[in-house]
Amino acid sequence: MIDYYSIIKKIYDEVSVYGIGKGKVADYIPALKNVNPKQYGIAITTLDGQTFKVGDAQTKFSIQSISKVFTLAMAVRITGKELWERVGKEPSGTSFNSLVQLEYENGIPRNPLINAGAIVITDLLSELLKDPKKEILSFVRQMSGSDDIYYNKIVKNSELEHAHRNLALTYLMKSFGNINSDVDKLMDIYCSQCSIEMNCVELAHSFLFLANRGLNPFDGERILSESRAKRLSALMFSCGFYDESGEFAFRVGMPGKSGVGGGIVAIIPGELSIAVWSPELNNYGNSFIGIETLEKFTTDIGKSIF
Amino acid sequence: MIDYYSIIKKIYDEVSVYGIGKGKVADYIPALKNVNPKQYGIAITTLDGQTFKVGDAQTKFSIQSISKVFTLAMAVRITGKELWERVGKEPSGTSFNSLVQLEYENGIPRNPLINAGAIVITDLLSELLKDPKKEILSFVRQMSGSDDIYYNKIVKNSELEHAHRNLALTYLMKSFGNINSDVDKLMDIYCSQCSIEMNCVELAHSFLFLANRGLNPFDGERILSESRAKRLSALMFSCGFYDESGEFAFRVGMPGKSGVGGGIVAIIPGELSIAVWSPELNNYGNSFIGIETLEKFTTDIGKSIF
Amino acid sequence: MIDYYSIIKKIYDEVSVYGIGKGKVADYIPALKNVNPKQYGIAITTLDGQTFKVGDAQTKFSIQSISKVFTLAMAVRITGKELWERVGKEPSGTSFNSLVQLEYENGIPRNPLINAGAIVITDLLSELLKDPKKEILSFVRQMSGSDDIYYNKIVKNSELEHAHRNLALTYLMKSFGNINSDVDKLMDIYCSQCSIEMNCVELAHSFLFLANRGLNPFDGERILSESRAKRLSALMFSCGFYDESGEFAFRVGMPGKSGVGGGIVAIIPGELSIAVWSPELNNYGNSFIGIETLEKFTTDIGKSIF
Amino acid sequence: MIDYYSIIKKIYDEVSVYGIGKGKVADYIPALKNVNPKQYGIAITTLDGQTFKVGDAQTKFSIQSISKVFTLAMAVRITGKELWERVGKEPSGTSFNSLVQLEYENGIPRNPLINAGAIVITDLLSELLKDPKKEILSFVRQMSGSDDIYYNKIVKNSELEHAHRNLALTYLMKSFGNINSDVDKLMDIYCSQCSIEMNCVELAHSFLFLANRGLNPFDGERILSESRAKRLSALMFSCGFYDESGEFAFRVGMPGKSGVGGGIVAIIPGELSIAVWSPELNNYGNSFIGIETLEKFTTDIGKSIF
Repeated sequence: MIDYYSIIKKIYDEVSVYGIGKGKVADYIPALKNVNPKQYGIAITTLDGQTFKVGDAQTKFSIQSISKVFTLAMAVRITGKELWERVGKEPSGTSFNSLVQLEYENGIPRNPLINAGAIVITDLLSELLKDPKKEILSFVRQMSGSDDIYYNKIVKNSELEHAHRNLALTYLMKSFGNINSDVDKLMDIYCSQCSIEMNCVELAHSFLFLANRGLNPFDGERILSESRAKRLSALMFSCGFYDESGEFAFRVGMPGKSGVGGGIVAIIPGELSIAVWSPELNNYGNSFIGIETLEKFTTDIGKSIF
Repeated sequence: MIDYYSIIKKIYDEVSVYGIGKGKVADYIPALKNVNPKQYGIAITTLDGQTFKVGDAQTKFSIQSISKVFTLAMAVRITGKELWERVGKEPSGTSFNSLVQLEYENGIPRNPLINAGAIVITDLLSELLKDPKKEILSFVRQMSGSDDIYYNKIVKNSELEHAHRNLALTYLMKSFGNINSDVDKLMDIYCSQCSIEMNCVELAHSFLFLANRGLNPFDGERILSESRAKRLSALMFSCGFYDESGEFAFRVGMPGKSGVGGGIVAIIPGELSIAVWSPELNNYGNSFIGIETLEKFTTDIGKSIF
Repeated sequence: MIDYYSIIKKIYDEVSVYGIGKGKVADYIPALKNVNPKQYGIAITTLDGQTFKVGDAQTKFSIQSISKVFTLAMAVRITGKELWERVGKEPSGTSFNSLVQLEYENGIPRNPLINAGAIVITDLLSELLKDPKKEILSFVRQMSGSDDIYYNKIVKNSELEHAHRNLALTYLMKSFGNINSDVDKLMDIYCSQCSIEMNCVELAHSFLFLANRGLNPFDGERILSESRAKRLSALMFSCGFYDESGEFAFRVGMPGKSGVGGGIVAIIPGELSIAVWSPELNNYGNSFIGIETLEKFTTDIGKSIF
Repeated sequence: MIDYYSIIKKIYDEVSVYGIGKGKVADYIPALKNVNPKQYGIAITTLDGQTFKVGDAQTKFSIQSISKVFTLAMAVRITGKELWERVGKEPSGTSFNSLVQLEYENGIPRNPLINAGAIVITDLLSELLKDPKKEILSFVRQMSGSDDIYYNKIVKNSELEHAHRNLALTYLMKSFGNINSDVDKLMDIYCSQCSIEMNCVELAHSFLFLANRGLNPFDGERILSESRAKRLSALMFSCGFYDESGEFAFRVGMPGKSGVGGGIVAIIPGELSIAVWSPELNNYGNSFIGIETLEKFTTDIGKSIF
């Protein structure tokens, strides 16, 4: 038996010492900029139902791009192969909000974990669902086993006011026929999903169905087929960390997803999910402390997917 | 004395025979698509006040991108060097509505005669003018010496409905801080200016102040300093024909500007301006017959700027 | 106990029926073009020492880009972090022989499994080794436990005659200071390593040290540290299949590497390595039958890294 | 009558004061790097046979890229339309030695005045001429009316040693089938033509046939048809100054060509040719003082092509 608590406690103590102050809090919207940068939390949930936590693991933060995994899981669940005609499965090779690739490749985003791809997924959900915002929130609550999860309207409105780049991506895709919804409504949903606030414990819970190959370990419901759950993990492995995905795979070797709020969630298939949060970001927009934490974690437990 | 009428009549007769059917009418909006493709007109106005015309030279058509020269002239007139901090003077090297260059070059368009650059110019006018739409129309009427020039609301609304690509360009520039106006208002002005309808005679008149090095030949008013008028001509020479600018310079050798409505206006500095219209476009979005006409014209009169 | 023989025999029978004729043999050099396209072999080697094979598993073929893994392993073994200053770890996002990324990123290739990156690795080996060609061959022989492995001089010379694109990549990197060797000598080594001929059984053997986390299972020698072996697997997972890497990860989910000779080798860490060969390639330059085979294989054995 | 001597003397005096030290001498090869940066010369030759000079107008320097105009004129003279299937006529929109455009556009350079295009032209000459190096030198001597013009072998060899980027361009084009010669021989010719040394007076003479619409004013020989001479001028106007071509057209408005040796030659069609030399370059690789000089010149004489 691995003593997960001791492991994350030790990592927490070590990384706290040298990691604080190494990155820079996201500052493109006031709501993110004003977060206390010195926060740091870790939570682990294992498939056998135990949860371990340390630091600010129960403080809520903005999940931002981590929401892309939830909406992708919802879309994969209710659609079929046609989804993959509108978005690719390849690493992007360029910045998370680049328009260059879209222009050269007829408005088809490289994968659903960069902004353009996630916007296509949200467009698809907003076509298929009656009340997409309600159902997205409901799905996130179900996966995390917590009803205490909400959109943050201030963050959402702030995102909307600074959404010029995302609007550029969306209109470019629309010019290629790859966006069907009204753009203003779509942006409202997309910025809402980014504004969801969760803490590390809730995030660790919410990714457990992926570690469990598609089966929700809390209630036994099959969320995704085993094959689809694995494929979603493969996508996170290749594309989950923007331009740093290869580096993350190389150093850490876990499928996962990060957000500019400073959160990272990753899984060891068949074992556990782990969430880390610390607001200061490295140059690639990933939590500096988060990546340090996960690298130490895989080294310490001596497990990885390879 | 050159007999301009005979020259354009001969060209008209020749090109009518082989040119009709060689291109393709712009079809991205219904209002342009439904134009009778077999129309063809030529008008010349000389600095000594004579006008020569042949074919459909008095039929109105949508001037589209030719409007970029009018708004640029207005902007050059009322601003100074600061204009050139927001837009470049170099040929684009890419398609007229490409976002790639903007992304690599921080939202500064290559020149004011491609869409992105013209949108920046209109943004600038909409900041500086009280009633930009009224003043743009007023300027065009003054330059052409005709009050019978109007926006076409059907064309404008149709453009607005298909403005996704231009919206993408605009939001991308806004994300770089190079657009100040409200985007919806800006698009309304921009699509309005594109929807202006003029005929060949009016267009030939309206470019005469450039052939006359900045002085309006009709009323003697100085519109631009000689130096600025020459610079505007240099820009048209290098950038006036989208991706075909070099080819046009090579074959024709006149400063000019084309629009997807099928119109082309060009000048011989110190001598004349010439407008040609025929709706069928070549692969670069320039009037097939228009370019043939101008190539024959410079050959026949034995004059060019070189 | 999984009956690997039955599994690959069944897959072989199924894929033989529909797979032959679906791809196109590499035709850029005569030596590859003239291969009989209807060949198809599979070999598996497990960590407990068993080998299973079916079809043309003992026919030699040109390993081509699979050699990139061998030279990378050699370079990782004898160098340290400085290697990663000359080549990245990120998926390329562009074609395997693209110069665009190199120009934008100062001559540092995205990863060591595309041509430019592999050329840097070979440059590094040719600086550090006394007789690079001899030592590369020797390493491949040691890993595969077979002395019956040779360079094919006809293939090498043919590659050299058609190496214009690789020469362009190399000179471009040299202009950025990222190539130190004499270019002609470097190309000779690089084309030699691509010309190595092996069969499926030898290839499966030769990747077993990666499945065994760095320890050669045949003689117990540690080839790479566990950490480095895992990192090399992560790289293969993200970057091993050119532009189809994400798709391969999504459908198959194994770390591996393909070559235009039609060979693919992949591993299940801690379990086995598998080599497939069939010369007909899909549009991405990967063996059509090879990828079909591996997808069925992971589905049938119900194992993957996720 | 314009007093050209007084005009260039005045400009020379003014620009000497503020221009020296504003740029940076080309330093990629020792032979250029070691030039005295404070040199500055101007020469004008008019079509009626007068020559005016000031400063270091009779000091030899390396003409570098100016040689592209001579080889292009030779190629245009001895070939037909087929030339334009191998090289375009459009401004490049990217740096003078960029590979990006070549990769996206199948190895066809944008125009013959950037490196890639000039290499294609030299390739063509080396196919068509018996002794290309001899004939290129002979053509330059004839055009300039001076036998005292030579290749500089030290410069040539130095260029050859630093030709990695040009080799990358050449091999990339060869991979697309757009280079026929042996690459080593081709580079020898290309670096030779760049190493030609001339002074301002010789350069002004040598471009006079272009100002004279194709007719050599010294001996009356027709070098190019009027149409071809004009087209070559149009090309220089659009593409003669690398990434600064549009800016040069805007500020100066003359067809011309610059080289990294610090020389610039430009013409006023029907009137004169002017050569300026000063080794310090601006950020675009054009002589800082050279461009200042020409801008003042067109302003002072009140003539331009527009």
